[in-house]
Amino acid sequence: MDDVEIDPDRLYDRFEEFNRIGATEQGGVNRPALSDANRSARDRLCEWFREAGLEVTIDEMGNVFGRREGERDDLPPVLIGSHVDSQYNGGQYDGVIGVLGGLEIVEALSDAGERTRRPIEVVSWSNEEGVRFQPDMLGSGVFAGAFDLEFALSRADGEGNTFGEELERIGYAGDEPCRPRDLHCYFELHVEQGPRLERRGLSVAAVEGVYGFAWLSVTFEGMADHAGPTPMHEREDALVAASDVVGAVRRLTASGGEDLVGTVGSLEVEPDAINVIPETVELTVDLRSHDDDVVSSAVDRIRREVEWAAEREGIDYRLEELMRIEPRTFDTDCVETVEAAIEAAGYEGTRLVSGAGHDASYLDDVCPTGMVFVPSLEGVSHRESEFTEWSDVVAGVEVLCEVVRQKAAE
Amino acid sequence: MDDVEIDPDRLYDRFEEFNRIGATEQGGVNRPALSDANRSARDRLCEWFREAGLEVTIDEMGNVFGRREGERDDLPPVLIGSHVDSQYNGGQYDGVIGVLGGLEIVEALSDAGERTRRPIEVVSWSNEEGVRFQPDMLGSGVFAGAFDLEFALSRADGEGNTFGEELERIGYAGDEPCRPRDLHCYFELHVEQGPRLERRGLSVAAVEGVYGFAWLSVTFEGMADHAGPTPMHEREDALVAASDVVGAVRRLTASGGEDLVGTVGSLEVEPDAINVIPETVELTVDLRSHDDDVVSSAVDRIRREVEWAAEREGIDYRLEELMRIEPRTFDTDCVETVEAAIEAAGYEGTRLVSGAGHDASYLDDVCPTGMVFVPSLEGVSHRESEFTEWSDVVAGVEVLCEVVRQKAAE
Repeated sequence: MDDVEIDPDRLYDRFEEFNRIGATEQGGVNRPALSDANRSARDRLCEWFREAGLEVTIDEMGNVFGRREGERDDLPPVLIGSHVDSQYNGGQYDGVIGVLGGLEIVEALSDAGERTRRPIEVVSWSNEEGVRFQPDMLGSGVFAGAFDLEFALSRADGEGNTFGEELERIGYAGDEPCRPRDLHCYFELHVEQGPRLERRGLSVAAVEGVYGFAWLSVTFEGMADHAGPTPMHEREDALVAASDVVGAVRRLTASGGEDLVGTVGSLEVEPDAINVIPETVELTVDLRSHDDDVVSSAVDRIRREVEWAAEREGIDYRLEELMRIEPRTFDTDCVETVEAAIEAAGYEGTRLVSGAGHDASYLDDVCPTGMVFVPSLEGVSHRESEFTEWSDVVAGVEVLCEVVRQKAAE
Repeated sequence: MDDVEIDPDRLYDRFEEFNRIGATEQGGVNRPALSDANRSARDRLCEWFREAGLEVTIDEMGNVFGRREGERDDLPPVLIGSHVDSQYNGGQYDGVIGVLGGLEIVEALSDAGERTRRPIEVVSWSNEEGVRFQPDMLGSGVFAGAFDLEFALSRADGEGNTFGEELERIGYAGDEPCRPRDLHCYFELHVEQGPRLERRGLSVAAVEGVYGFAWLSVTFEGMADHAGPTPMHEREDALVAASDVVGAVRRLTASGGEDLVGTVGSLEVEPDAINVIPETVELTVDLRSHDDDVVSSAVDRIRREVEWAAEREGIDYRLEELMRIEPRTFDTDCVETVEAAIEAAGYEGTRLVSGAGHDASYLDDVCPTGMVFVPSLEGVSHRESEFTEWSDVVAGVEVLCEVVRQKAAE
């Protein structure tokens, strides 16, 4: 099986051409789900799929599949892929390398004249990022049965356009049912979005699983008064309580569990005026760990911290759990197959747990699943400056190619 | 001089009619400076001024003066008034009672056939609130020489319309020069905007002066990274630093000086997403005291707290002093005249220092100045629920009427 070689230049040329679609001035891409730029990216991808001899199928969620026949075409396929939607002004690598890498793998197989026992499918999932339509990973979520199709199609963006309407508009509302089907396995190549690989000077990693997380929404309701004449002891300042929670989240990460991370990412103040005491503050809390008990304990603690902060300031609060995703531990055989392929390709191996969610998290409900990570420079992602050394992208595709050949031979 | 009596019903009818202009559903008014509603309010006021026999003058800043002749019309006048612009969805009393109260006083004098030695002028200052055009108290500020006319006319609102353009648009760009002129004294009746009078069950107070204050703008520059895969020790979270400052401001008010108040009223997070570590946080600090040294020490301490918070998180910061206003101590004779009038009218007297700035703060640069406060229910102001018992409004106008008669006789 040594004659199958991926072509780094062909892959790079496609990567370059692809990222001209929705390119931003600072070297990123702006291709949010179902935007015009996202449609152009989908169009290009389908063209390339067809040129590579793949049979293109679009499902009801606009997930795009390109299928390469197997010798035993009746067997469940090996599925590989990721997504081509981006953050607003996001980076070039996130999602794209997994889809274009998958395409490169089937082309390399065809170049080498290698037929595989099982069919291979390359997929591009809809709305992975979740910046335009919430929740994120909507395409793979419906595919895996985590969401109803109707729920997903009715999600609206900030301007009231629904996912279903926009999917029709860009011409990607397909006929193929979007629901779980028999798959032999799923593998996803993705950038790490954290700094661990780069810090350790490694090119590629086997992903063991994905952190579980909880998303909380907290609202403090104080009293807006003039910042001058209102004595300190009469104040009901929602921002003072909110700041206590920001501090509490940070402190909790030092004691709440080995791998616990916690973030207050969004915080909004009303009326937000220099001389008015904040009346309402709405903030979010993001708590993650690979240990579900750690996430649960952290949620309990933050509930109490919110209560204490409100009581300290004498104000009201509401706390809502927006999302609670259990940690994933990928199929042992899939993880070991990736590890072995890393070693076989001559790279130093390591295992990582993903702090970010991925389409692979939902696919793990459908079939044995694994992931391959390549480094993110300084851990940066979701930004135009996101960068991965090209040799590391190539390493990731090489490893995944080897994994696919093994799995497709089963 | 006992035959001059203000007419509470006439005053109330005007108050009711006036507050139908720009009325909001929740019982407030929405008449920001130079808006259409502000123009209508000005039109009505000018009408009433003329009906009351006052000579109306509009100056270059759109400040509206109504003048009642004195026996010695060459002598500098007694000036009374306040403002009729409002916050967005503000209250009915703030500013309005000082202007309509002033009008009622000259009508009461005329009803009683009382001529005064000095002329009396009633004024409505432009843009006291500063919600549409910053800084606030722009009309009285230019009048007192604190700002250049050109600076004031070039101030733009959020949509880029300048104060000068909008003043022309509503027809209130007058010819009268806006600059300091000889005034015998200035008095302003206003709601307290704090809870002290209500808490003590008092109807009216003599204002000794106005708190000085400092406004700071602080920006923390961290690094936006994914809230999942970024280890805690690699984070540069601008919101964690900002929260330290919110806490530091609150703590400082317990130790920084007897009457020190401190508020973080505005705080904005970028990119403000649930799963992204905050990169940039911009916040404001409002520090006030009647003791200028206390304000200065508080500013120094917050500068250091900002530096410490940035260093703790390993991020950059910028700190800018937006405004620094020295405390005011009003003319002793003016304050004592108000006190004596309160006593003469049969109310229990007290002195207060104003936590909020007022047009009177600038007028204090031009002539001997005093103020009369009436209670604000629960200290609420700048909100639709702002309320003052009508009997207290009347008490304030009675007291001011007595003060004006004495001063106009000098």
